[in-house]
Amino acid sequence: MTTTLQDCRALDAQDPLRALRDQFTLPEGVIYLDGNSLGVLPNTAAARVAEAVTQEWGQGLIRSWNSAGWFDAPQRLGNKIAQLVGAAPGEVVATDSTSINLYKVLSAALSIASEDAPGRKVLVSERSNFPTDLYIAQALCRERGLRLLLVEPEGIAQALTDEVAVLMLTHVNYRTGAMHDMAAVTAAAHRAGILAVWDLAHSAGAVPVELNGTQADFAVGCGYKYLNGGPGAPAFVWAHPKHASRFWQPLAGWWGHAAPFEFTPDYRPAPGITRFLCGTQPILSMTALECGLDTVLAAQPLGGMAALRAKSLALTDLFIELAEARCAGHDLSLATPRGHAQRGSQVCLTRSEGAYAIVQALIARGVIGDFRAGDGGQQLDILRFGFTPLYIGFEEVWLAVEHLKQVLETGEWQRPEFNQKQAVT
Amino acid sequence: MTTTLQDCRALDAQDPLRALRDQFTLPEGVIYLDGNSLGVLPNTAAARVAEAVTQEWGQGLIRSWNSAGWFDAPQRLGNKIAQLVGAAPGEVVATDSTSINLYKVLSAALSIASEDAPGRKVLVSERSNFPTDLYIAQALCRERGLRLLLVEPEGIAQALTDEVAVLMLTHVNYRTGAMHDMAAVTAAAHRAGILAVWDLAHSAGAVPVELNGTQADFAVGCGYKYLNGGPGAPAFVWAHPKHASRFWQPLAGWWGHAAPFEFTPDYRPAPGITRFLCGTQPILSMTALECGLDTVLAAQPLGGMAALRAKSLALTDLFIELAEARCAGHDLSLATPRGHAQRGSQVCLTRSEGAYAIVQALIARGVIGDFRAGDGGQQLDILRFGFTPLYIGFEEVWLAVEHLKQVLETGEWQRPEFNQKQAVT
Repeated sequence: MTTTLQDCRALDAQDPLRALRDQFTLPEGVIYLDGNSLGVLPNTAAARVAEAVTQEWGQGLIRSWNSAGWFDAPQRLGNKIAQLVGAAPGEVVATDSTSINLYKVLSAALSIASEDAPGRKVLVSERSNFPTDLYIAQALCRERGLRLLLVEPEGIAQALTDEVAVLMLTHVNYRTGAMHDMAAVTAAAHRAGILAVWDLAHSAGAVPVELNGTQADFAVGCGYKYLNGGPGAPAFVWAHPKHASRFWQPLAGWWGHAAPFEFTPDYRPAPGITRFLCGTQPILSMTALECGLDTVLAAQPLGGMAALRAKSLALTDLFIELAEARCAGHDLSLATPRGHAQRGSQVCLTRSEGAYAIVQALIARGVIGDFRAGDGGQQLDILRFGFTPLYIGFEEVWLAVEHLKQVLETGEWQRPEFNQKQAVT
Repeated sequence: MTTTLQDCRALDAQDPLRALRDQFTLPEGVIYLDGNSLGVLPNTAAARVAEAVTQEWGQGLIRSWNSAGWFDAPQRLGNKIAQLVGAAPGEVVATDSTSINLYKVLSAALSIASEDAPGRKVLVSERSNFPTDLYIAQALCRERGLRLLLVEPEGIAQALTDEVAVLMLTHVNYRTGAMHDMAAVTAAAHRAGILAVWDLAHSAGAVPVELNGTQADFAVGCGYKYLNGGPGAPAFVWAHPKHASRFWQPLAGWWGHAAPFEFTPDYRPAPGITRFLCGTQPILSMTALECGLDTVLAAQPLGGMAALRAKSLALTDLFIELAEARCAGHDLSLATPRGHAQRGSQVCLTRSEGAYAIVQALIARGVIGDFRAGDGGQQLDILRFGFTPLYIGFEEVWLAVEHLKQVLETGEWQRPEFNQKQAVT
């Protein structure tokens, strides 16, 4: 029997993580299934950012670099992130954007490979990886005379040949929500003499990650999705300790210097992950990011990432069950793997037509998911729904599917206003 | 006769720009001569940032990418900056940090040079340039097998040989406040077949700059100094239109793509300056930056940068006059050029000993300048005082010198607490 609204309410009432939702301000009347694009507002952020603006900046001015903890914010926030991704204190810094951090670590990985295995001239990634990752890889390959080999997920194992220097993957696919087995893929890469670089944009705060446990080589991730850091929040970067001090990263700015305020003309990289810093960080956005990180760390006494993961799987299982049962006959297909081990914290549906308009119609009803375009060929357009277990409940899943059902049954998605494309989808 | 406190009050009363100060919140009892390190808080920032946090992020969530102008913020803010640096609309974007932007433009400049003049293998800069500029140049030179030649300011002309690909300079020196003649130096570089890349960190909002007028090739600058954008505010980048679309910059992220939301696997750079974007920008920090830019643009009806420059010179002239007259016999020397054409908007003093402690003693009295270390050799330690004409008045200059005089006469700077070094100086 299909799960009922009553059942969902009971699940919420029994949910040991339910109180974590009280950390956030959500708009009235909105069911927010887009925390995988932009996490919601932590209650603490408004006051903390206001304090950073009026007190730290307004009153403290430059003194706040020392007195308000601005100076070591990248490391302080990095240590908080480390707890969520299986890294040790001192191994992560919060800084810059995911794209920029990827450039740093890919560059470092390619430098290591060119020294340890100079004959390897290929960088492997997945064709359906998030495009900015591919663009950054493409640019670095052009610079260094390497070949970027893009394969389908099922072709990765076969692609790990002795020509390959680096394997770069996103742990959870942004379109489909499919998740790689980070430990197994990293081990396979290492057996083939290949370094493994991971993008955790859709993982950090969403699924358990064990960077040291899996012996990954480098990782980057996003601050504004499941870490709730606010629009365009700084990203993060991790390097395995055995690599961190080995090479300069090319964005060798003063904040990565061993002694930035000695103002020496020669670059001398700081030991460890600090050398992956470059310039001055946007402190107001860093302040909001710290509030976001604290919301995820608040789950630690309740079981942490394992507990969040269990709830996330329950939410996504429920959405799949309800969408298939209640929207049957409406030409929806599931693009996300059913197996728990292969799924992140989102569910993606495809439809042969109307995906964009259906998403717009849902948004008009207050059910916010998003649309991701297909490639005009095999990849169909996607309706994407993210489930952040910190603040999404089971009743909301039921209601979201009810709205989806109504949008499809009434045909309201065919209204012209839902077909007008916007700059950001 | 030395200018008196009364004279200074009269100057303030006559100052046609005096009302611009009302745009800012300054701490009570502080004379802030460090706007060249971090500009002060615009009155509008607290409310605007709060709106961005609670309304745009909290209520609008991802919809704000379209509805709140997040998506085109780099270009919108860039167009505001363009008005302050002699660039045209569409030629500037606000993004990332100065160091990262310098990496982008230096890389582009070196790519142009390697195509147009492949034999040129030297990058020239000034030994006393801001260190992060030198570090970025050093890293790029390592990557590309080029030589970084560092010269003294008086050696620049001679260094412009046919081996040189790019000349990279900071317009106003961060330590001494010495200013290059951008038009003359750029013209000399061009005559020698060399591209000119300028760092405007201490120029934008402080002195008139004519990027198109001087036919510079590339420029970057800082958002948190004279542009009052808040701690770590995003920086900006400009490319001469003839260069902007010619090469990929290496940080080829999705925001620099011609159609970022098509999510195509291949990078296709946007035309013009937009390709110098990389990843998602920190929106809260961008919001504060826009408030800062508006404070400088508010001077446009009052004569704009020319009027600000006239006041800046009057303030720095006055500080020099008073420091020399009233602190005579205290071993202070002027490190900033006296000639108006050679001076930015700051005055630097050197002393054979105690510079750090004197700055700390002044800060304890509420006179905030900063300290910049010498090189232990020819370059002496510096007491640095920045004069932002938007909010600094003549009476404050008089009082600052009075405090300096008292700190020196009483010897209070010799107290142990003023000699404890902090992480950020």
